[in-house]
Amino acid sequence: MIKTKATGPIPSGYHATDGELALGGQKVSALVAEHGSPLFVYSSNLLDNRMAQLRTAMPDRLDLHYAMKANPFPPLLRHMVGLADGIDIASGGELRMALEAGAAPEHISFAGPGKRDEELEKAIQAGVTINIESPGECERALKIGARLDRKTRLAVRVNPDFDLKGSGMKMGGGAKPFGMDIELVAPVVKRILDAGADWRGFHIFAGSQALSADAIIETQAQTLELAARLATEIGKSPAHVNLGGGFGIPYFPGDEQLDIAKVGEALAGQFERLPEILASTQFAIELGRYLVGEAGVYLTRIVDRKQSQGHTFLVTDGGLHHQLAASGNFGTVVRRNYPAAIASRFEEETAETVSIVGCLCTPLDRLSDSAAMPRADVGDIVAIFCAGAYGATASPASFLGQGPAKELLVD
Amino acid sequence: MIKTKATGPIPSGYHATDGELALGGQKVSALVAEHGSPLFVYSSNLLDNRMAQLRTAMPDRLDLHYAMKANPFPPLLRHMVGLADGIDIASGGELRMALEAGAAPEHISFAGPGKRDEELEKAIQAGVTINIESPGECERALKIGARLDRKTRLAVRVNPDFDLKGSGMKMGGGAKPFGMDIELVAPVVKRILDAGADWRGFHIFAGSQALSADAIIETQAQTLELAARLATEIGKSPAHVNLGGGFGIPYFPGDEQLDIAKVGEALAGQFERLPEILASTQFAIELGRYLVGEAGVYLTRIVDRKQSQGHTFLVTDGGLHHQLAASGNFGTVVRRNYPAAIASRFEEETAETVSIVGCLCTPLDRLSDSAAMPRADVGDIVAIFCAGAYGATASPASFLGQGPAKELLVD
Repeated sequence: MIKTKATGPIPSGYHATDGELALGGQKVSALVAEHGSPLFVYSSNLLDNRMAQLRTAMPDRLDLHYAMKANPFPPLLRHMVGLADGIDIASGGELRMALEAGAAPEHISFAGPGKRDEELEKAIQAGVTINIESPGECERALKIGARLDRKTRLAVRVNPDFDLKGSGMKMGGGAKPFGMDIELVAPVVKRILDAGADWRGFHIFAGSQALSADAIIETQAQTLELAARLATEIGKSPAHVNLGGGFGIPYFPGDEQLDIAKVGEALAGQFERLPEILASTQFAIELGRYLVGEAGVYLTRIVDRKQSQGHTFLVTDGGLHHQLAASGNFGTVVRRNYPAAIASRFEEETAETVSIVGCLCTPLDRLSDSAAMPRADVGDIVAIFCAGAYGATASPASFLGQGPAKELLVD
Repeated sequence: MIKTKATGPIPSGYHATDGELALGGQKVSALVAEHGSPLFVYSSNLLDNRMAQLRTAMPDRLDLHYAMKANPFPPLLRHMVGLADGIDIASGGELRMALEAGAAPEHISFAGPGKRDEELEKAIQAGVTINIESPGECERALKIGARLDRKTRLAVRVNPDFDLKGSGMKMGGGAKPFGMDIELVAPVVKRILDAGADWRGFHIFAGSQALSADAIIETQAQTLELAARLATEIGKSPAHVNLGGGFGIPYFPGDEQLDIAKVGEALAGQFERLPEILASTQFAIELGRYLVGEAGVYLTRIVDRKQSQGHTFLVTDGGLHHQLAASGNFGTVVRRNYPAAIASRFEEETAETVSIVGCLCTPLDRLSDSAAMPRADVGDIVAIFCAGAYGATASPASFLGQGPAKELLVD
């Protein structure tokens, strides 16, 4: 008897038509027939809904940025440029994609610990804000700005002396390659001001993928306090403070949705009690996964159904080359099941315990381990949910000669 | 005081010219100046040496196959087609690449649990051997072969009832998506024979990345015993038996080279004592990592040197988007340091403890953690060794808009 392992919660907003999962009004069988498999499908309606919920929950004063590293698929990125107040980029490649998607340079900011001179040059030429990560990078940027004779827009990324509790990835609270330690910030800002560059403020990112409203509330309060302390030390109000992100989505059994109403209320309260030095500062949060993660589904076709020592395997034409994180091989120590379903039998009752694997010749390539599913066979379509963020581009698409999956933005 | 962590052993065959690591007679600074960074450099001399050592150690009767999933870079693949007795592929994409590299179809075999109908069709058209992974796949292959009116070359992949002890990846000894359980093998072979297809024999792969000669010797003995048992049950000698691979390379502190002389001697002894039913069988092993892993180096340039809370970070223009396994995020539970060096100061004494990180905005992007290195600065070149296998194609090259690294085969 195979012990069944739970799968993560299927995000809300997914429904069946004639018993099949339907996306953008089309059944998965029709989508796969037209576009092939494996296939990433992103829903613009779900993107709109998520952003609308967030606008309602958050104070009006807060800008909502999209961190495009989560999903740079051009049609989705164009859609997000229309919805978000800013686009946060992490490389010269992302700068090019953001500009091509129609983002205005004054609404783009560039963070990343290893910016090459060519990337700094392109960013300065374009007029985007650069989040400076070290004194050395500051000097390189100022030198390039002087050579180009361009006003250089520089914010300072701070390595905070606290972390986001319960976050999937800690970005602060210790020795980090990101940003600069607190004692370096004031001297670097003074250097920027003395050089005549445009000091844009602070970027303070303490962690990502947290589901606890209380943890995010505490971190945002600490972030505002730190920004005020640094501004006071510098003796100048920052035009802008990026409060980081940290809003997680449920992936695994037992995970619950983040209470954004609670986060928004607390932040509105913080904004009412701001110290004078931050009174005219513009604030933003940058979200990637939270904005797009649940709006995407990965569809893959079953090509074999087989038994081994009493265990049933559904072998698909997809795998970790498109879904590295879902396979448990990216930033996780213990493998747990993402939300998954037999999309072509979305309303059928579970009937058996199966492992859903990819087509790669490696035991790492497991999409769902010992999960309860309806009876499925060759030709059925599997859906892995939460595939809108860190899926296609965060996976080794060329592994074993497979190549990338097709991606599609639907209504 | 930062505690220093050891790095893995640098493979033999790497030397300095004027104090710099040199590859194919060129200093790393010259290679990076000409080809840019990050850069994968593979040495054809080291590939030749490795294959020559293996030919000396192994019995003449044993064919040596290259499992191209380890590294399909076209110039390297062409080189390996010239050195190896066969090419093992894992997808339709690899089939195309192997044929383009000049591999003869009769020396190609195709394994993988999720072969699509289109892939089976292309493989049958080309005349390569297909390692059948399930009864269902057998029926699909026979049907396609009949439709194409082609003699179909089918071997049967067996899920062995033992595993390779101490292997990095177990491919047998339990419920597996690979191959078929032992009791299914004889019926499927009979089905192949009855259908008039060309039954090529067995593919038995118990695990990979083992450094213990004794473990490999034991597994090879079990594999031969299993092949004989199955052949006896079927009542027919297999033309060919693929004994799998499993030869590991040292990656981590304390790892030692596999004693191939000991493995070869034991296998020669086994071949002398073969049962009658395997007397005329041709044997092969398939190796990927062992043939190419130590012949490759990943070079990346330092773009920033920074301090955080007493820790020194060297930030490079490379990262886990090219070196996922070296970052500790692919198939490993505990992160350990791959062999690494400051290639531009290859002969200098270690002078400090540093962490070498990539340019990605994620704490996962660490190439070497708290390692002892010579004093290096912006512009110096870092080498990560053991980059010849499961590097470029086993990493998410598109992550954060970075794109793939350039690859180069030198003398």
